[in-house]
Amino acid sequence: LSNELDAEIQHKIDMKTKPQGSLGRLESLAAQIARLQHTLSPCTDTAMHLVFAADHGVCEEGVSPFPQEVTAQMVLNFLQGGAAINVFCRHNNVGLKVIDAGVKTSLPEHPDLVSCPVASGTRNFAQEAAMSAGELAQCLQTGAEMVDCWAADAQVLSLGEMGIGNTTTAAAVLAALLNIPARDIVGAGTGASPEMQVHKAQVIQAALERHQTHQLSPLEILQSVGGLEIAMMTGAFLRGAALKKLLVVDGFIATSAWMVAYQLSPHIRDYTVFAHQSHEQGHQPILSQLGIVPLLTLDMRLGEGTGAIAAIPLIRLATAFLNEMASFDDAGVSQSA
Amino acid sequence: LSNELDAEIQHKIDMKTKPQGSLGRLESLAAQIARLQHTLSPCTDTAMHLVFAADHGVCEEGVSPFPQEVTAQMVLNFLQGGAAINVFCRHNNVGLKVIDAGVKTSLPEHPDLVSCPVASGTRNFAQEAAMSAGELAQCLQTGAEMVDCWAADAQVLSLGEMGIGNTTTAAAVLAALLNIPARDIVGAGTGASPEMQVHKAQVIQAALERHQTHQLSPLEILQSVGGLEIAMMTGAFLRGAALKKLLVVDGFIATSAWMVAYQLSPHIRDYTVFAHQSHEQGHQPILSQLGIVPLLTLDMRLGEGTGAIAAIPLIRLATAFLNEMASFDDAGVSQSA
Repeated sequence: LSNELDAEIQHKIDMKTKPQGSLGRLESLAAQIARLQHTLSPCTDTAMHLVFAADHGVCEEGVSPFPQEVTAQMVLNFLQGGAAINVFCRHNNVGLKVIDAGVKTSLPEHPDLVSCPVASGTRNFAQEAAMSAGELAQCLQTGAEMVDCWAADAQVLSLGEMGIGNTTTAAAVLAALLNIPARDIVGAGTGASPEMQVHKAQVIQAALERHQTHQLSPLEILQSVGGLEIAMMTGAFLRGAALKKLLVVDGFIATSAWMVAYQLSPHIRDYTVFAHQSHEQGHQPILSQLGIVPLLTLDMRLGEGTGAIAAIPLIRLATAFLNEMASFDDAGVSQSA
Repeated sequence: LSNELDAEIQHKIDMKTKPQGSLGRLESLAAQIARLQHTLSPCTDTAMHLVFAADHGVCEEGVSPFPQEVTAQMVLNFLQGGAAINVFCRHNNVGLKVIDAGVKTSLPEHPDLVSCPVASGTRNFAQEAAMSAGELAQCLQTGAEMVDCWAADAQVLSLGEMGIGNTTTAAAVLAALLNIPARDIVGAGTGASPEMQVHKAQVIQAALERHQTHQLSPLEILQSVGGLEIAMMTGAFLRGAALKKLLVVDGFIATSAWMVAYQLSPHIRDYTVFAHQSHEQGHQPILSQLGIVPLLTLDMRLGEGTGAIAAIPLIRLATAFLNEMASFDDAGVSQSA
């Protein structure tokens, strides 16, 4: 990203009628967005949220307290407008599309559902690779296409997910990418008991060893232990950054998809805002290792991208103050000594 | 507050299509608002923000890097719509009135300005009591009347302030109320240098000793070392709680006004949400002493109530999910084992 406007952006921020720095993180956010849009008057009015849904073969190992059918049931709930993400997007004026990346149960046609399943869920990564190299490539491509199709005009792009078992998948991906033990990153997900969490960690650790993930590239890791929705999100994040959109990342699963993209293309970080510190226990240490503190910490762990949408009003306040506040000169206000 | 609906409220929250507890702090916030409105379908659509402005005699002691005229200049900026609080209220659909509680410079008539100055600023509390008992009573009464006049229909009431020198006043009030040394609570305010902060703390500590604040009641403390806008805010908080409004408290100065109200009437806490952890250094330890963690931590320290308004969208999401999300039964979604 070009930094040629940085001094002008900072000057514009500092001349607003407020003590310097007093809008805290909204100031750095405004500067980031202005820089990536290469303008002193950035805009975040149009925001699009894409929810990718898929099933996970690793559910066979008993890693979630919810039955696998809930993935499809929740997609239907999205289409009927009754899920948290529907409420959040409606209230914050964010567009929403749901993408079937590979739900096992067949789904009805619906104007808000984009049907492009790459497979009928992943295979069980405890036994074999979650997907083939061809399936992975198709996921990455489809994720990028979803951005082109549904978020071409959006200044702000956020991604969410639905997939019973996907905290297990995300933990496997992150543990492999960052080379940390599974037990340090596994959490309760939708509400696993302590015993189930121990079991989750064992399933993941055995899979990391079976697939020899320490020898694999980020994309090979995604193929071995990833998810179809997670791989599509990786493709969507990469495409969103290429189109200079602000990427809003929320919780544990979105972070796993983002981390693959980041390892492939570190400059994606310039386009990213982390919206919410998930209550899922693995999230905080992973982000703090990168020096990232999300905007919100509301102890949420719902998924669907709800944490991302909760932060959208703050993102819009950041650009609004930069565009709309008077300067000391405009308002005839004296500056500090 | 009656707790007779608590079990029903919790049941309604738990039957929503999400893992139990997975909306984190939005769940406890929804429950709090439902309880105080005594309904399973609470509403937070109408919100009103009142900004109280006044000058501070203690500015004579050289406690702020900004000249005192900035109080009036910023009020004019509010009336022209150019301040941070204007932008924040516009974008979050919150009404705004500015109240002249005692600005030294005379102000023009304006439809958004309510003129009810109790004095031409406080007297210098380093030398004498900041206000008389009669002035204090008038402030408390006027603060309550402002709520009746301008926020009668608001379900959500937030308060902000403008007054050069008022971090010094607020620190004095809080140090006296909580009986802690001034140096533990004084911060940079609008940008005081370390030397100015040491001086601020000395001015305050000497005043606490001069006024023998450890022997005073909360209202006597407010009279001795408080501010006209702070006293009006105390009156407004008390009236807002009496009218069963949700009170949104943001930073250091609003907290000082709230703390007087809380010591007079502890049940006010049931009506209160703390919106933002100020970057002002005294704020965090005071709140954590009460076990309070604000919704947001954005390193803001601007005043005007900007932190309160930044949290309004989260408050509305809390009631929205309770009112609008489908239940497991509605949506035909299976629950966890």
